[in-house]
Amino acid sequence: MAANHVVVVGAGFGGVEVVHRLASAAVRITIIDRRNHHLFQPLLYQVATTSLATSEIAWPIRSLFRKSRNVTTLLGKVVGVNTGEKTVLLEDGEAIAFDTLVLATGVQHAYFGHDEWEPFAPGLKTLEDATTIRRRLLSAFEKAEREKDAARRAEFLTFVVVGAGPTGVELAGTIMELARDTLREDFRHFDTRDVRVVLIEAGPRVLPGFAADLSAYAQRALAALGVEVILGQAVSRCDAGGVAFGQQHLAARTILWAAGVAASPAATWLQAPADRVGRVLVEPTLAVPGHQDIFVIGDTAHVETGEGSLVPGIAPAAKQEGHYVAEVIKARLRGEAFARPFRYRHAGSLATIGKRAALADFGWIKITGRVAWWVWGIAHIYFLVDLRNRLTVTLSWLWIYITGRRSARLITQDEARRGGI
Amino acid sequence: MAANHVVVVGAGFGGVEVVHRLASAAVRITIIDRRNHHLFQPLLYQVATTSLATSEIAWPIRSLFRKSRNVTTLLGKVVGVNTGEKTVLLEDGEAIAFDTLVLATGVQHAYFGHDEWEPFAPGLKTLEDATTIRRRLLSAFEKAEREKDAARRAEFLTFVVVGAGPTGVELAGTIMELARDTLREDFRHFDTRDVRVVLIEAGPRVLPGFAADLSAYAQRALAALGVEVILGQAVSRCDAGGVAFGQQHLAARTILWAAGVAASPAATWLQAPADRVGRVLVEPTLAVPGHQDIFVIGDTAHVETGEGSLVPGIAPAAKQEGHYVAEVIKARLRGEAFARPFRYRHAGSLATIGKRAALADFGWIKITGRVAWWVWGIAHIYFLVDLRNRLTVTLSWLWIYITGRRSARLITQDEARRGGI
Repeated sequence: MAANHVVVVGAGFGGVEVVHRLASAAVRITIIDRRNHHLFQPLLYQVATTSLATSEIAWPIRSLFRKSRNVTTLLGKVVGVNTGEKTVLLEDGEAIAFDTLVLATGVQHAYFGHDEWEPFAPGLKTLEDATTIRRRLLSAFEKAEREKDAARRAEFLTFVVVGAGPTGVELAGTIMELARDTLREDFRHFDTRDVRVVLIEAGPRVLPGFAADLSAYAQRALAALGVEVILGQAVSRCDAGGVAFGQQHLAARTILWAAGVAASPAATWLQAPADRVGRVLVEPTLAVPGHQDIFVIGDTAHVETGEGSLVPGIAPAAKQEGHYVAEVIKARLRGEAFARPFRYRHAGSLATIGKRAALADFGWIKITGRVAWWVWGIAHIYFLVDLRNRLTVTLSWLWIYITGRRSARLITQDEARRGGI
Repeated sequence: MAANHVVVVGAGFGGVEVVHRLASAAVRITIIDRRNHHLFQPLLYQVATTSLATSEIAWPIRSLFRKSRNVTTLLGKVVGVNTGEKTVLLEDGEAIAFDTLVLATGVQHAYFGHDEWEPFAPGLKTLEDATTIRRRLLSAFEKAEREKDAARRAEFLTFVVVGAGPTGVELAGTIMELARDTLREDFRHFDTRDVRVVLIEAGPRVLPGFAADLSAYAQRALAALGVEVILGQAVSRCDAGGVAFGQQHLAARTILWAAGVAASPAATWLQAPADRVGRVLVEPTLAVPGHQDIFVIGDTAHVETGEGSLVPGIAPAAKQEGHYVAEVIKARLRGEAFARPFRYRHAGSLATIGKRAALADFGWIKITGRVAWWVWGIAHIYFLVDLRNRLTVTLSWLWIYITGRRSARLITQDEARRGGI
C-alpha cells in the first residue's frame, strides 16, 4: 500500500485540500500545477483594483507542503490522461504514472464562442489577469488626463463590467471607489467623480446566486455608489471602441469580462460525459463513471446537491469535495468499503459592494450593510493561508478603510512588451 | 512670475526632491516620467529575491503630489529636448514648453558594447527587471527539481552575478539565503545547500566604493555565506550556457548583470559635453553649459566633489542635487543672484550581505556585522515614502528574520508570453 501513488492535478482550493488531508496517510502524493503558486481567488479582484499586492493572495505550492516528505510538487502543464496505462501526460512529454488520480483543474473564462473578444475584455482568473486589468484601469485614467477631446476623454473614463455575479459586482463597486476616493486628488484635467462604471448582466438581476431580496439590496448599493446597472441585456460584441448589446453601443475603452466560464478540458482528457460548460458528470462518490480510481472535484466537476441544484463553484465547495475524496482514498487504503456519497453543506454566501456595503446569506440569517462588510472581511482574512498574509491583508484593508488610499497602483509592463512582474 | 513653468523629467530620487522643494513656490510644475511610479531602487534587489512585494517599494508618482495643485504629473516618454524653442518632446509627438528644465533621467544597465548579452544576463533597474529576475531564479530551482541528469541539474543550480558593487553583493548574498534558508525544505530531488552562487568582479575587490577594510570584511562575509567570489576577471561572454572569463567557462543557466551602467541620453538630447558613460558635464550650479535654465541632476549628471572625485550615484546624492536646484530656481524667482555652487555632503555608505551581516561607513565610524544590519534596516525603513510601506516592509523583514521564509516567491508570466503583473 505504501507504493500507492496519488496524483493531484491542480493546486486550487480542491487540490490543496486533498493533499493536506492525505499528507499524513501512507501514500506517495504528487501535486502538479502549471503555476508555482496557490491563488486565493476570492480576493483576486482586489489585486486587479489596486487594493492588494500579488504576493498577499498567492503562496508557492511547494511551500504549503514543505513539511510533508511524501508530497512532491511538480511545476508542469498537464495535456492529457491515459486512462488505460494510468498515466498523466505533461506538455514536455513526460508521463507520470498514478494509482489514484484527482483532477481539480478548475475553470477559465469563456466568451460564449467569441474568443475574439478576449483582447478587448480581459477576464480575471490568474495573477497576470489581475495585473493586466490593473494596468488597463490605471492606464485609462492616465490617457484621460492627456486627452484634450472631451468625447474621447469620456470614453477613457467609461468602464464596462460584463456579468453581475460576485466578481462583476465586486469589480464594479471597487472601480467606482478607486475613482471617487483613491484617485480623487490625483488628476488635474478631469474630475474623477465623472467616471462612469456600467455593469451589464444578461439575466434579470445582479448576484443571481443569492436570494432575491439580497440581489435587490446589492442593486441599491451599487446605485448608491454610482454604478449604472443594466439588466436583461446580453453583450453581442466587444471591440476596441466599446460594447454592443440590444440595439445599443456603449463607447468605452475599458471592458472587463466577468460573465462566463468554461471547465478545463478534464472531460476531454478522460473522454467522460460532461455538461454544457464541460464539467465532468461524476458519480455520487465524485469518481468518474467507469474509472473508480479517477476523481474530479471543484469547478471541473458537475455535482448535484440533494435538492437537485448544482454544487456552486466556490472555494468551500471545492474544499469539501477535496476533503471527501481524501476520506474515500484513505478508506480504500485501509481496505474498507466507503459507500457514503458526497453531500454538500452550504455554509453561506458572501459578497461585497465597495468598502461600506456587503451581503451575507447564511440561510438562517441574512445580513447586509456594514456588519456584513466586517463579517466578509474577517471571514476572508481567516481563510488566508498563513499568519503573515493575515497581518498584511488586515493592514492593507484598514489602511484603505481609514485613508481611502490603495497602495498597489502600479502600471507595470506595457501591452506591447513581453515579460512580467 | 506665476507663469514660470518648471518641467522635471524623471521621478527618481532627484526629480521627486526638486518637485517637493518647489511645491509651495509660485511656479507651475510638470513632472514627466515614462513609468507611473517612483521606485525605491535601493531595495529593488529584495523584490528580485522574493523578500518584498512590488508595491512595497513603489508609489504612484501622481499620488506623491496629489495635494500640490500646482504640480501636474504626466505619464509619457521623453525623446528629446529642443533647447532653442525650450520644449521637451514626447514620443507621441507632443511638445511641452518649459521656462526651466530639470533632467533627472537616471541610468540604465550597460553591457560594455555587448547588448547581445542582455537576454542571458538581465540587469536590475525597473520593477519588471526585478520580477524577471525573480521568475528566472525560481524557475531555475523548478527546472532543477525536474532534471534527472546530475550535470545539467548542477547548471540550473549555479547562479552567476556579474559585478560586485552593492547590488551585486546584495543579490549574491540573498540568493544564497533564499536557497539555504527559505527553500531548504521545498524540493525533493536535490539539496538546496548544493546551490552555487558565483560573484565575478573585474576589479581587485568587492564593494570598490567602500574603504579597503570594509571590502575585506564583505568578502569574508560572502565567503562565510558560501558565495564564491572571483576577482580581477572581466566577463568576456554571456550566453544560454553560462559565462566566459579569462580562459574559463562557467556553466550556469542563470546570470544576473550588476556590472555596468550608462547614463540616459540626456547629453545627446542637449548636445552637451558628456563623460565616458554619457553623464552630462554640468557647471558647479548643476546647469548645463550655455543653458542656464536647464539643469541635470542625479545619475545623469557628472558632478565633481571638492576632493576631485565624483559625486556617487546614490539616492542621497540625487536628493541633495534636487534640493540644491530647487533653491537655485526659488532664488531666481525672487530675482536674487545665487552663486553658491553645489556641494555634496557624504552622509555615509551602507551595504548588506544577507540578513546577518552588513557594513556602514560614516567616515568618522565604520560598523560591521549585526549592528550594521540593524542600522541598514532602520535607515531604509526611515527613507520609505509613507507610513504604510514602513509598516509592511518592517513586517516583511521581521517575518524573514524570524522564520527565514520569504513571501513573494511568485513565478509570474512565462518568458514566452507577453503581459505582466
